[in-house]
Amino acid sequence: MVMMSSRMAGSTLLRHLGPRLFSGASAVRGAAAAGGPAYTSLLSRATASEPAPVLVRLFLVRMASTTATPVVGGERGQGEANPSAAEKEATASYWGVQPSNITKEDGTPWRWSCFMPWETYKADVSIDLKKHHVPTTLLDKIAFWMVKALRVPTDIFFQRRYGCRAMMLETVAAVPGMVGGMLLHLRSLRRFEQSGGWIRALLEEAENERMHLMTFMEVAQPRWYERALVLAVQGVFFNAYFLGYLVSPKFAHRVTGYLEEEAIHSYTEYLKDLEAGKIDNVPAPSIAIDYWRLPADATLKDVVVIVRADEAHHRDVNHFASDIHYQGLELKDTPAPLGYH
Amino acid sequence: MVMMSSRMAGSTLLRHLGPRLFSGASAVRGAAAAGGPAYTSLLSRATASEPAPVLVRLFLVRMASTTATPVVGGERGQGEANPSAAEKEATASYWGVQPSNITKEDGTPWRWSCFMPWETYKADVSIDLKKHHVPTTLLDKIAFWMVKALRVPTDIFFQRRYGCRAMMLETVAAVPGMVGGMLLHLRSLRRFEQSGGWIRALLEEAENERMHLMTFMEVAQPRWYERALVLAVQGVFFNAYFLGYLVSPKFAHRVTGYLEEEAIHSYTEYLKDLEAGKIDNVPAPSIAIDYWRLPADATLKDVVVIVRADEAHHRDVNHFASDIHYQGLELKDTPAPLGYH
Repeated sequence: MVMMSSRMAGSTLLRHLGPRLFSGASAVRGAAAAGGPAYTSLLSRATASEPAPVLVRLFLVRMASTTATPVVGGERGQGEANPSAAEKEATASYWGVQPSNITKEDGTPWRWSCFMPWETYKADVSIDLKKHHVPTTLLDKIAFWMVKALRVPTDIFFQRRYGCRAMMLETVAAVPGMVGGMLLHLRSLRRFEQSGGWIRALLEEAENERMHLMTFMEVAQPRWYERALVLAVQGVFFNAYFLGYLVSPKFAHRVTGYLEEEAIHSYTEYLKDLEAGKIDNVPAPSIAIDYWRLPADATLKDVVVIVRADEAHHRDVNHFASDIHYQGLELKDTPAPLGYH
Repeated sequence: MVMMSSRMAGSTLLRHLGPRLFSGASAVRGAAAAGGPAYTSLLSRATASEPAPVLVRLFLVRMASTTATPVVGGERGQGEANPSAAEKEATASYWGVQPSNITKEDGTPWRWSCFMPWETYKADVSIDLKKHHVPTTLLDKIAFWMVKALRVPTDIFFQRRYGCRAMMLETVAAVPGMVGGMLLHLRSLRRFEQSGGWIRALLEEAENERMHLMTFMEVAQPRWYERALVLAVQGVFFNAYFLGYLVSPKFAHRVTGYLEEEAIHSYTEYLKDLEAGKIDNVPAPSIAIDYWRLPADATLKDVVVIVRADEAHHRDVNHFASDIHYQGLELKDTPAPLGYH
């Protein structure tokens, strides 16, 4: 983790006027050339009850750059006192909160905000894809057949458009982990209990699914009616899963486990079409190459294999979570599988 | 990050029959001595539509240990086919999901599930505690005075019982980050947008506040009516902040920023009482020593100083987030401050 004081980070950034980190950003060099002197923040001697005027502006060279005009005297509080059109980019103002200057192992700047280099990983693609939880209890059978029933309209809608299918279904897949993680978080707070790591495990699952979406977004572009459908489905599914998790986390995890089993099947079909040449095997999106530490010449096929392995892991975690409940225990009684996706 | 295949992790765990990692767990050595042979999982050749019998059981030696009786033929699915009283501890069953064997730098086993060694940090206590966002707009003034008004009943209830205050208010403080993070996550999904890292930043804030709670729980034990109060307050505050964030994230972040300013003030008063000897300066809880990388002889005073620095950082992040909204931008347009708390 990068740990710097705000003052150090500011001067470090100023010294490391590197190339733009984001393709859409205006030139960092331009901002440095055009702008004025750097101000360091002056500490206010005021107490919390008697705020005195604070003379501050950090001149920042930031990833999504900006030209920050220094503000003197009296001005404080909001980031931009008199925002002109050129200054509409956010400045970190005197809160001194700024992103760190991260580089990859080869020295090139790190392009992404939503994940850091230490959060990338190589997926274990040897994971068993064929594992299946055979439903024995009534609740499990309901979960299983519910998921099977949902597959019918999904297959009709997507046909063999697996790229689009992947993109849209990842918007659904990223919900359970977040809902479950949040509800466990709230429970841990109000009951003054340890979590066993499950909050983190479920939130990681949600973030991983969201990264799948960020990847497939580069491959398939959603049309307006697909976007509308995603909105509607999220509204329904989020609330349904939220209530379901409150009523029966056992059932909720089982459903998610079965959803992941279906996802593995769909990604296998996606691979078949890619191998048969029915779908273009395009180069892997760069976000995927960085996130999963793929070689630079990786293709969509490599990405689908890895995403499928991720889904297999989520299947295991969710069925395991449900099993724990079946044994009459709570998740916090059993350490969660953390540390790999 | 520790990355192992489930099969490797299983055999690694079997080889590393170390001391118990959890104080309440039955002896790992006992389980190994009493149990039978280890079975590795056999892959099913079934397809998703025709599940065949799967002969599996992983004999696991786990952190919260268990004696797992091997199950042969026909048994599958749920973790324990015939759970006896002794087997009521969860087994990871054939899902093969098991926690890794983590040790500290000095070789002793890692005690915690909810955070890993690579997630610990040394807080920057030189952060400016006196920064204050002077409310200028109407919305900011409402936020400011609302927080000031909430302070009145809080002060009356807690008086100078700062340990209890810290513990109970952390149950509240851990809510905004989680709600904000979740709503940004859902937005990123349905709009097919990058997040700028803010989901992670807000979730980290929530987790950090929860760790404050886990720490103060060791110092102050809640009484039954305090637990009841926490339940009630969570019910109200979660829903209010959820709606507030949907309606006006600008306002929500501003409120949180002001709440953090009040927290800094309260922790300063806590420190005064500790220094004056009015509150016992007990040794720091071990969870705090591990989480913040404190020296082994750290005391409650050191913990309060660090927690106060954390709150100052959260103040900055939330006021910054609100400033971004004030500039007519969305959080995703500005990379979030990630990498330190």
